[in-house]
Amino acid sequence: MMETQLRVTFQPQGRSVFVLHGTTILEAAARAGVVIETPCGGGGTCGKCRVKILANAGVPTPADEHTFSGSELREGWRLACQNPIKTELTVFVPETSLFGSEHQILTTSDAAAPRDVRPGVRKTYVELTPPTLEDDAPDLLRLELKIGPFKADLPLVRQVPITLRAHAFKGTAVLADHRLIDFEAGNTSDRCFGVAFDIGTTTMVGELLNLCDGRELGVVSRMNPQVSFGDDVLSRIKHASTCAGCLDEMRLVAIREISGMIDALCAGAKIVREHVYEAVFAGNTTMSHILCGVDPRQLGEMPFVPAHARGLLVPAAELGIPIHHRGLAYVFPVIGGFVGGDTVAGMLATRLDQIPGPVLMVDIGTNGEIVLAHEDRFYAASTAAGPAFEGARIECGMRGTHGAIEKVVFDGDVRVEVIGNAAPSGICGSGLIDLVAELLNHGIVTPEGQLLSGVELPRALAPAFAKRAQTDEDGEAQFVVTDATPGRPAPPVRLTQRDIREVQLGSGAIRAGITVLLRKAGLAVSDLRTVLVAGGFGSFIRRSSAQRIGLLPPEIDHQRIRYVGNVSLAGAKAALLSTEARRQSEELARRVTHVDLSTAEGFHEAFAEAMLFPLVEERHTPGRTGV
Amino acid sequence: MMETQLRVTFQPQGRSVFVLHGTTILEAAARAGVVIETPCGGGGTCGKCRVKILANAGVPTPADEHTFSGSELREGWRLACQNPIKTELTVFVPETSLFGSEHQILTTSDAAAPRDVRPGVRKTYVELTPPTLEDDAPDLLRLELKIGPFKADLPLVRQVPITLRAHAFKGTAVLADHRLIDFEAGNTSDRCFGVAFDIGTTTMVGELLNLCDGRELGVVSRMNPQVSFGDDVLSRIKHASTCAGCLDEMRLVAIREISGMIDALCAGAKIVREHVYEAVFAGNTTMSHILCGVDPRQLGEMPFVPAHARGLLVPAAELGIPIHHRGLAYVFPVIGGFVGGDTVAGMLATRLDQIPGPVLMVDIGTNGEIVLAHEDRFYAASTAAGPAFEGARIECGMRGTHGAIEKVVFDGDVRVEVIGNAAPSGICGSGLIDLVAELLNHGIVTPEGQLLSGVELPRALAPAFAKRAQTDEDGEAQFVVTDATPGRPAPPVRLTQRDIREVQLGSGAIRAGITVLLRKAGLAVSDLRTVLVAGGFGSFIRRSSAQRIGLLPPEIDHQRIRYVGNVSLAGAKAALLSTEARRQSEELARRVTHVDLSTAEGFHEAFAEAMLFPLVEERHTPGRTGV
Repeated sequence: MMETQLRVTFQPQGRSVFVLHGTTILEAAARAGVVIETPCGGGGTCGKCRVKILANAGVPTPADEHTFSGSELREGWRLACQNPIKTELTVFVPETSLFGSEHQILTTSDAAAPRDVRPGVRKTYVELTPPTLEDDAPDLLRLELKIGPFKADLPLVRQVPITLRAHAFKGTAVLADHRLIDFEAGNTSDRCFGVAFDIGTTTMVGELLNLCDGRELGVVSRMNPQVSFGDDVLSRIKHASTCAGCLDEMRLVAIREISGMIDALCAGAKIVREHVYEAVFAGNTTMSHILCGVDPRQLGEMPFVPAHARGLLVPAAELGIPIHHRGLAYVFPVIGGFVGGDTVAGMLATRLDQIPGPVLMVDIGTNGEIVLAHEDRFYAASTAAGPAFEGARIECGMRGTHGAIEKVVFDGDVRVEVIGNAAPSGICGSGLIDLVAELLNHGIVTPEGQLLSGVELPRALAPAFAKRAQTDEDGEAQFVVTDATPGRPAPPVRLTQRDIREVQLGSGAIRAGITVLLRKAGLAVSDLRTVLVAGGFGSFIRRSSAQRIGLLPPEIDHQRIRYVGNVSLAGAKAALLSTEARRQSEELARRVTHVDLSTAEGFHEAFAEAMLFPLVEERHTPGRTGV
Repeated sequence: MMETQLRVTFQPQGRSVFVLHGTTILEAAARAGVVIETPCGGGGTCGKCRVKILANAGVPTPADEHTFSGSELREGWRLACQNPIKTELTVFVPETSLFGSEHQILTTSDAAAPRDVRPGVRKTYVELTPPTLEDDAPDLLRLELKIGPFKADLPLVRQVPITLRAHAFKGTAVLADHRLIDFEAGNTSDRCFGVAFDIGTTTMVGELLNLCDGRELGVVSRMNPQVSFGDDVLSRIKHASTCAGCLDEMRLVAIREISGMIDALCAGAKIVREHVYEAVFAGNTTMSHILCGVDPRQLGEMPFVPAHARGLLVPAAELGIPIHHRGLAYVFPVIGGFVGGDTVAGMLATRLDQIPGPVLMVDIGTNGEIVLAHEDRFYAASTAAGPAFEGARIECGMRGTHGAIEKVVFDGDVRVEVIGNAAPSGICGSGLIDLVAELLNHGIVTPEGQLLSGVELPRALAPAFAKRAQTDEDGEAQFVVTDATPGRPAPPVRLTQRDIREVQLGSGAIRAGITVLLRKAGLAVSDLRTVLVAGGFGSFIRRSSAQRIGLLPPEIDHQRIRYVGNVSLAGAKAALLSTEARRQSEELARRVTHVDLSTAEGFHEAFAEAMLFPLVEERHTPGRTGV
């Protein structure tokens, strides 16, 4: 069943989203990538989530009246957590209401241009005085006296004198990592771009940035084509050893896809690839190894040792990345084992070292990464969550793109929200977590993970739900989420018993990892002050659903849980825009204690236990549980 | 006429040389590349040139008796400047008697291994603890914890894990310029070599050094094959513009020859090229440009501006130099105009900044370079001396190799010394200077440079000389130095009028350069405290001959003149052995004021004047004039 959705636009971020009637402004904002601060957890008491509704603000709630003056109320000021959306709106979100105004979290949601743009690439237009007998300084020295010291590779020593003389001693010097990588005719100093990539096991996301001011110029997301060689890191590692050229084959399919993404980004922004001077890559250890052509074989054998620890700054051409012909590529540092650059990027983006702890960061992907920060110590672990949360290994699963069901609410019937407000083509990670949570809430799935149908269903179950819990032609239980829409190309979207097993495995692995890390640090779940949930979901993971299925410990006060988006990409962007951020990431990577879960004491017991869904019988009420 | 020569061996340097009967030990030592200190100019008064003759010391001179005790005299101690050689000798030269014991001059003659060997390349054998679950540090980090921080290029990130596992976590790390350039199986730490090159317009000299202890393992010298494109820098610059591939063609013939020299050096020392990790090149501006594939066109046009000033540290492979596949090449910094890396290397080798001034350094080659150091200021100029002093453009000219006449004395008849004690094949620069000086002394050449014959000859001229001053079949005057030796392949060696014109041009250009620089600094010739004469001569330039022909101002007290050998090569060696020396050379290059002679006031007048040989009618007496 599809419902009419309402468009809400957030300013000055300029982002729009379609939401169901009754969704709070807070949740709508979060889904649009505008994360609003809610220290009270959306209870309407802290007054932090102030927004201004530009028209049709509606009647203030008691909490609004308590918070704002009469004139403020008349201007449209409201608390985002208290106001359900009933009509199309444009909402102004002041910077002071954004999450991270205390400690700036650099997420994709942080739409404002970063304040500190100091990239490793610098372009300077110069007009040099042509040499005379009295001033016969060599060409490169003449340039250095203008723009400061640099190193020059041979091709530039060859090129600069020619370019200078062909263009009246005027041109634009391009410095990257203190090396002169180009000297361009004319003034091209405003055409200085970079790309940041999150290279996931299943999904790759790339973003184009203007290195002059940090502005975002486009995002593109694609399936990692290496999935054809196996959908998790272990199968990729195994494939790399299968034949002499297998590693290179896997590397090249990814590079080709990345190349296509760069093309798409450049085309979208109407710029040329030769003006993209740097590419930054954050990915897990296996992805980084394959991207760099480093044999990942040793990652597949005890004690799972990566080749390198430090970040790698190499000529982009050596990786086959088609940006400027002398451009650079930075591959994030590695922590250890399977905990790689994406985790470091996440720590960098969330400024995990600056958040009052104990704080837990959980990055949910095919490889789930968990970092626990406590008293200046960091513990990190990686766990094979499987690709279920990225829509893979799920029958009707898909990535969080156009047509993906990304929110599910059981409210009389099954209500869904689809990315792009389109006909549903499948279900993505956040929709899947919602759906399983609702199936548990309504007793259609048992705590053991059994999908019920027919006479097994709870007697009190409303017929609207009961009729969806069917058995297929093979007698297997299935839950029909959306029927085929007559006259539209959308197929039915259903959930199978096998799908639920995948969710159990993935959420159990992450949950067990959390348990082990907390034990390692001598902490209980209740000690956690903040839990940051990260991941490249289609949209926004609802904390209540994540807790309901046991992905996050149910006993955590849900006010302490925040979804922070694709922090791996956000960290890659930060490192692209600031060499200082890059330095910090190198330092962060070295401060972390790597915990190998596969051999950690108690992991297997914790995993077995976490495979069971929690027993909590909590009723989910849309619009009240918050995010 | 050939005379029997006497072999003299110097210890601990282990160098031997053949000399004419009566040559002083001082001169013989210098010709063997062992430069002995002579502050008094060889007058026997300062007692600095102490040596110990190991057998057949002969009767002490009065100066010896004044200097040494009776027991010292009995042990064979003598003053090198006072004792003519009358029999084959072995002479011990203590380090305290070596020139440079005050300010260490790093010449090829400085046979003792340099004290401060801190090259940019470092090899360390490591035995790492294999990783365990408790100690799962990434491979490169594990290596770094052992040998200190380094940067690693992609190929090394790929290679190290494989090599470590194939060889029980043992191997030899090779760091160059703080980068890991190789990780070799087994302990190869004692196989660490480098090559230093002086790339002259006419002659290229290369030396192989052990980078562990600085020991010299071999020297090889070859003609620069670019001479086929023109014998001076201007004709090379012109050729580079002749066709699209001409620059590259010139570059490649030089690279091929250098490659052959490296092969020869490695074969001689029984080492493999892959254990040579660094190559250092000192050459004039044009040679450096062509070697690096930088178009030298702008050096051929006013205001003669080089492309680069700083030294270039680049992958050797980028230059085509066949050493270790990731080895480095360092090309010396440039001062300005035609004053290039060879001059900087010479300043470095002679530690010109530390010698009490005013001091003049004259490097005699196809391009003559002159540096004047005075009160912390340095002036440098380059002058087109032509290739005469390197044996080119001279009919019977040759480089200072086996078979070259390198010393000429008129003593009853023409007496010559030939390199390798062989039959004479031609005459090299030092022999040519001697010869013209003697011809001037005997009135066979006039101050205007006319070579006389027949009735024009002075009446008093001994018949032994008169019969050599002939006219050839075309009626041109010639002086026959050595006749064809019957039964030996050696052709006659003669000097023509044209040869004398070449000597006049070369010595006049250098002399005019000296005049202009002195004027620039407000100094007179008499102010000069020290004159260092450098050049890749076959052997040893005699200061008296150089003054006689006017190459050096005759009015300089000849005690102040020292021949310091191939300082360009010596500087290249110093920079190969010490990164600190390299840093100093960069600093020196920037401190020098470049003087363009072609446009300097008064140069052309000075040149015209210097073309005439000095009028001095000084008689040369072998064995007394000293060196």
